[in-house]
Amino acid sequence: MESRHIPLATGMDHYRGKKVLVTGGLGFIGSNLAIELVKLGANVVVADNLDPAGGANYFNLDPVRNDLEIVEGDSTDLALMERLVPGCSHVFNLAGRVSHIESMQDPFSDLRMNATGPLTVLEACRKQNREACVVYAGTRQSYGKPDILPVVENLLLKPVDVNGVSKMAGEAFHMVYHKAYGMPTVSLRMVNTFGPRQLVKHARQGFIGWFIRQSIDGEEIQIYGDGQQFRGFNYIDDVVTALLTAGCNNNVIGDYFNLGGMQPVTLEVLVQTLLRAAGTGSYRLVPFPEERKSIDIGSAFSSFMKFNFATGWKPTTSLEDGLVKTVEYYKRHKTHYW
Amino acid sequence: MESRHIPLATGMDHYRGKKVLVTGGLGFIGSNLAIELVKLGANVVVADNLDPAGGANYFNLDPVRNDLEIVEGDSTDLALMERLVPGCSHVFNLAGRVSHIESMQDPFSDLRMNATGPLTVLEACRKQNREACVVYAGTRQSYGKPDILPVVENLLLKPVDVNGVSKMAGEAFHMVYHKAYGMPTVSLRMVNTFGPRQLVKHARQGFIGWFIRQSIDGEEIQIYGDGQQFRGFNYIDDVVTALLTAGCNNNVIGDYFNLGGMQPVTLEVLVQTLLRAAGTGSYRLVPFPEERKSIDIGSAFSSFMKFNFATGWKPTTSLEDGLVKTVEYYKRHKTHYW
Repeated sequence: MESRHIPLATGMDHYRGKKVLVTGGLGFIGSNLAIELVKLGANVVVADNLDPAGGANYFNLDPVRNDLEIVEGDSTDLALMERLVPGCSHVFNLAGRVSHIESMQDPFSDLRMNATGPLTVLEACRKQNREACVVYAGTRQSYGKPDILPVVENLLLKPVDVNGVSKMAGEAFHMVYHKAYGMPTVSLRMVNTFGPRQLVKHARQGFIGWFIRQSIDGEEIQIYGDGQQFRGFNYIDDVVTALLTAGCNNNVIGDYFNLGGMQPVTLEVLVQTLLRAAGTGSYRLVPFPEERKSIDIGSAFSSFMKFNFATGWKPTTSLEDGLVKTVEYYKRHKTHYW
Repeated sequence: MESRHIPLATGMDHYRGKKVLVTGGLGFIGSNLAIELVKLGANVVVADNLDPAGGANYFNLDPVRNDLEIVEGDSTDLALMERLVPGCSHVFNLAGRVSHIESMQDPFSDLRMNATGPLTVLEACRKQNREACVVYAGTRQSYGKPDILPVVENLLLKPVDVNGVSKMAGEAFHMVYHKAYGMPTVSLRMVNTFGPRQLVKHARQGFIGWFIRQSIDGEEIQIYGDGQQFRGFNYIDDVVTALLTAGCNNNVIGDYFNLGGMQPVTLEVLVQTLLRAAGTGSYRLVPFPEERKSIDIGSAFSSFMKFNFATGWKPTTSLEDGLVKTVEYYKRHKTHYW
């Protein structure tokens, strides 16, 4: 438990000079993580399948384009993964699909990308490099519609969509590979993450990116339902810090942890905060479309106390500050994301 | 709750004249179920991929060979499943792999057969027949090494092998398809099942079939560890009744339930009971092989009270009687199983 008192910056030195693989590294979370890893002095290899249904965007890595290696390839390609993992101190197993609605329309692709893919990376590590710390991006979605709030880690997982099931399996494989082979693995269950480099082309990968785009475009945002559903939001920088922290902390190995925002807010408050940050846009409450209603989870926010106790991590960016930074980024780089 | 007081026989009339699909119907549980369904007057279609790693055996369906249809095909074949499910009142979604050890050696096949396969059957029903009641064979293995005994349904699932993860996902898909599409689905979490028509060619699909064969052959059975691990055992006839009961009881729709034996017994007592039933064989305690130790779950037995409360089901065959019937079957039909 000692390490939770070590300032995070000390732990981060851990990555200097290390080879680190980031799957899904052209996507939202992967690219932000890869940029930070480069800053920390790591030798970063990014693998991404450029799935048209995903958030891969070459511009995401623009700031570090000459400072890392990008491999176009799929995380379900065992031969490729076996070629990439040797020598890695860390593998951030982030490649996957995030859309709840698309997981219902194409469940097989969701299962392939969110369960077979992570399993492939684990198998590659089992065969070629059992020392690599494998950090997985799980999701609060695996809890489904929570019986109790905030969501804590000892609640049953009752996913309400295919994405929640596939990600649950992806996470559980990490636990199995730790127990069976002693491999250092850990999973962080993400909440709604937002910030620069998120896909904002359409609404299918989560509402927040879409709301940000609409607000910047001065459009009317539609909130489904009464807007009083609470959610937890994490700004991307806090999530990147959490992933990096998980990768250099022995307390967390073989276990799963919720992330979570500073405080839950309603969707209506989120949108009001966003409109203030953007200075444009408006909103309106509308009834749920049928296909979304069937997989809606109502209010859902997570306690990050387990992870905080193990590592000292906590979110440090307020919703307001995060939204201001995000709006600023997209206004500056609109052409690459719209 | 009324229906739990209706004698099971009444409920069973439910299947008369109905078209029923059994995937994995040449295997252990599937074939015993198919035989019973034929007796109950159902029009049974069996689908089986004859996976060499599975327990498929044409002789299993010998008693009803002319009374049902057998389709050789894989449950991951969506077009085939879409062709088979129309008109079915029930689909018993049983095709899958059961070997813990093989799931670690070939995790991708395990995931494909135990998660993609069941998902395919559900997708076929979603597209072609949302009225069909889909009954899934889950497993106690998904709980992993239990913190509390007996295992009850509100414990967290912490599978320790790939098989436990894949089956957990397979089950969760059934819950999702119920919630999202209103499809009538249910999962029963099997414990150690034994009886006629089980694969006994090797030890990789569970120890009990292998012990039965060794005992009949007068060989020395090796029990790993001290033999004091408790397990719950269900005789196949009780499991078939449970599956049939689940398929005709509205109380259980959209939920999962443990099965379980009359009383847990230690592996040593199991073997002693078996040796008495067979009249031949012997046993010896030996240390765990490394690859099995890493995924061993120690004592594990389940409470079936949730299912009993919902349906009235309980096991009616004692371990001793079940073993006597099983030994008798294999002695008579040895040539088809050895």
